[in-house]
Formats: sequence, C-alpha cells, structure tokens
Amino acid sequence: MGDKLKSTPQTDNIRKVASELFALNGYNGVGVAELGNAVGLGRGALYHHIGSKEDLLYDIASRYIIHMIEEAKSIVADTPDPEECINKLSESLMVTISKNLSDMTVCFREINSLSEPRHKIVSSYHLEYQRIWEAVFERGEKEKVFREVTRLECKAFLGMYFYSFLWLRRDGKQSAHKLGRIYANIVLSAVKA
Amino acid sequence: MGDKLKSTPQTDNIRKVASELFALNGYNGVGVAELGNAVGLGRGALYHHIGSKEDLLYDIASRYIIHMIEEAKSIVADTPDPEECINKLSESLMVTISKNLSDMTVCFREINSLSEPRHKIVSSYHLEYQRIWEAVFERGEKEKVFREVTRLECKAFLGMYFYSFLWLRRDGKQSAHKLGRIYANIVLSAVKA
Repeated sequence: MGDKLKSTPQTDNIRKVASELFALNGYNGVGVAELGNAVGLGRGALYHHIGSKEDLLYDIASRYIIHMIEEAKSIVADTPDPEECINKLSESLMVTISKNLSDMTVCFREINSLSEPRHKIVSSYHLEYQRIWEAVFERGEKEKVFREVTRLECKAFLGMYFYSFLWLRRDGKQSAHKLGRIYANIVLSAVKA
Repeated sequence: MGDKLKSTPQTDNIRKVASELFALNGYNGVGVAELGNAVGLGRGALYHHIGSKEDLLYDIASRYIIHMIEEAKSIVADTPDPEECINKLSESLMVTISKNLSDMTVCFREINSLSEPRHKIVSSYHLEYQRIWEAVFERGEKEKVFREVTRLECKAFLGMYFYSFLWLRRDGKQSAHKLGRIYANIVLSAVKA
C-alpha cells in the first residue's frame, strides 16, 4: 500500500491513457476491458502491469502531488530568500498543474473511490505540500519580510493555484511560467510586511 | 431548457436529497429508483416533480450560482465604495459556498454530464458572476483606490473562494462570515492602489 507503480514505458503509457479516460468518463465509467483495448493489452497483461484498477487510480492521484512535494523541498533547500522562494514555488506549482491536468481532474473527482489507507495517504500528501509553503511563510515572518500568515491563509493561497486545473486547458494563452509569476505577485502583495 | 424547477416543499426536498446522493455516489451512480426510495416517492410521482434526472442535475448545478449572481448584483447596486463592496461580495460568496457544499460538489464533478445547451448555460453563469467582480475592480481602479486588476487575476481570486468547497465542511471551526473577511483581506491587500 502506498507504493508507486514502477515507471516503465509500458506503465507510463497505461497511466497516461487511463488518466485521460478516467478524466473524460469517470473512474467507474471506464472498465478494465475498455482500458485494455485503449492500450492494446489483454486483461491478463494489463493486470500484470497495473496490479488492479484501484492501484492505477492511486498512482494517478498521488504521482503529481509527490512530484510537487519533491520539487518544493528542493526549491526550499536551495533558496534562502523567502520572497524568491515563493516565486519559485509558485512557478513550479503552476507548471506541474499544467502538465498534470487529467491526473488532477481524476484526483479531485475520484479521491473518494480510493479505499483506506490510500484515501488518507493522498490527503496527507496534500497536507505535506501545504506545510512546505507554511514553513516558507514562517521563515519570511522571522526575517520580517512577511507579515504573519495563518494556515488558513496558506490554504486559501494554494486553493487559488489548485483551482486553476479546471480552466487552465481552455485558456491556453498564458504560459504556466507566466501564470506562476502572476499568482506569486498576488501572494506576495498579500503577505509582504 | 434553462428553466429552474419550481420551488415547492416537495421539489426542494427532492433536490436536497438528490444533491447529497449525487455528491456521495456520483450522478451516474444514483438511479431513479434509489432516489425515489430516498424521498419516499414512486417512479411516476418522482418524474412528475423533477421532469427528468438531468433536469434535476441542471437545477442542482445552476441554482447556487444563480443565487450568487442575484445577491452580488444587489450588493453592487447598494454599495458604492469598491473596498466595502469587495468585503460584502466576499462574505456573501463564502456564505453561499458554505450553504451549498453538496450542490457545488455535484456541479464541479458532474458538469460534463449536462447536455448542451445546459452545459454552456451553467458555464455562462459562472462567467457572469466573474464579470460582476471585474466591474467592481474596474470601478475601484477608476476611483484610484485599486490598481489595475486583470481578468486573469479576478479569476485567480474567485478560484481561491470556490476551491474552499472541497475542505469547508471538514474545517468547520471558522464561520463562513469570518472566512469571507479573511479572504477579502487577501484580495484587498493584493489590489489596493
């Protein structure tokens, strides 16, 4: 439980196709036979690669947020200046969102289809990601460049980012990097001391 | 098409029960027989009240946003000061979100189950609501109390509010009014001239 599927060209392709199908027709609306047809594999071969349909859902729902956590930790470790750190976190987050629209659609719509403890694990990843931003706000407050930012405000800011997966595809005019800078400006203008 | 179901105690009850069932088990996961059982009506009587299952979905997905539009228009008409207007819009929005969690869950998750033109109509309501906030930001800019706020920024702010339906229930410690004031402070600190 809680392990990622191994990343091979085959499982990566199955995950990508499944994510798009689940996003389009719902997790319960896509059968294993349909998924097998879409990736050109029989039932047995498909199960060999994915374990179970729920393993696949768990993998789709958790992979992008695990990536966000890893990237955010690395940014925070390398970026002592809190303001610059928010700028980098913001761009990284927007880029990851823009690259994982179907995974995020599936995660937000189907998280209740995950059995425990997987449902809780995915929620805990989201909380872990939030805690990274909170720590940057705390650092900024200590250094007197930010005002005090409550957990609730941090959650509000992250909601602003995450919500964008709902429309990002349709308004493709702005690059994810540029959006990240625009969002960072909103956050920074709200928290600067 | 596009008409609201008549509001009677019976249809209000059916809508409420259906909204909670759809939010819990998905629109396609709830059959008319199950819904009939839940409200104590046979198939014929149920259809008499709701028209069709999709009429009910459309009603659930559109009613809260129509309410938001009506309330926002009234606030804007009565509140000449742009800053006060944002405060009032913010509180009104948060209160409406907190009172319509299951309707919003259904709307955001199931909007693609609506056939045209209903799908487009619901999207257009969301855009109409956004335009009301945009007009307040423009008014504030004209009066030199706000900086220029782009449409994208306005969309970002509203995303911050709307996203809260995902967690509002679980963090019930804060009142919707108080949350509305906290969110308004974020918006105002980001846009004040």
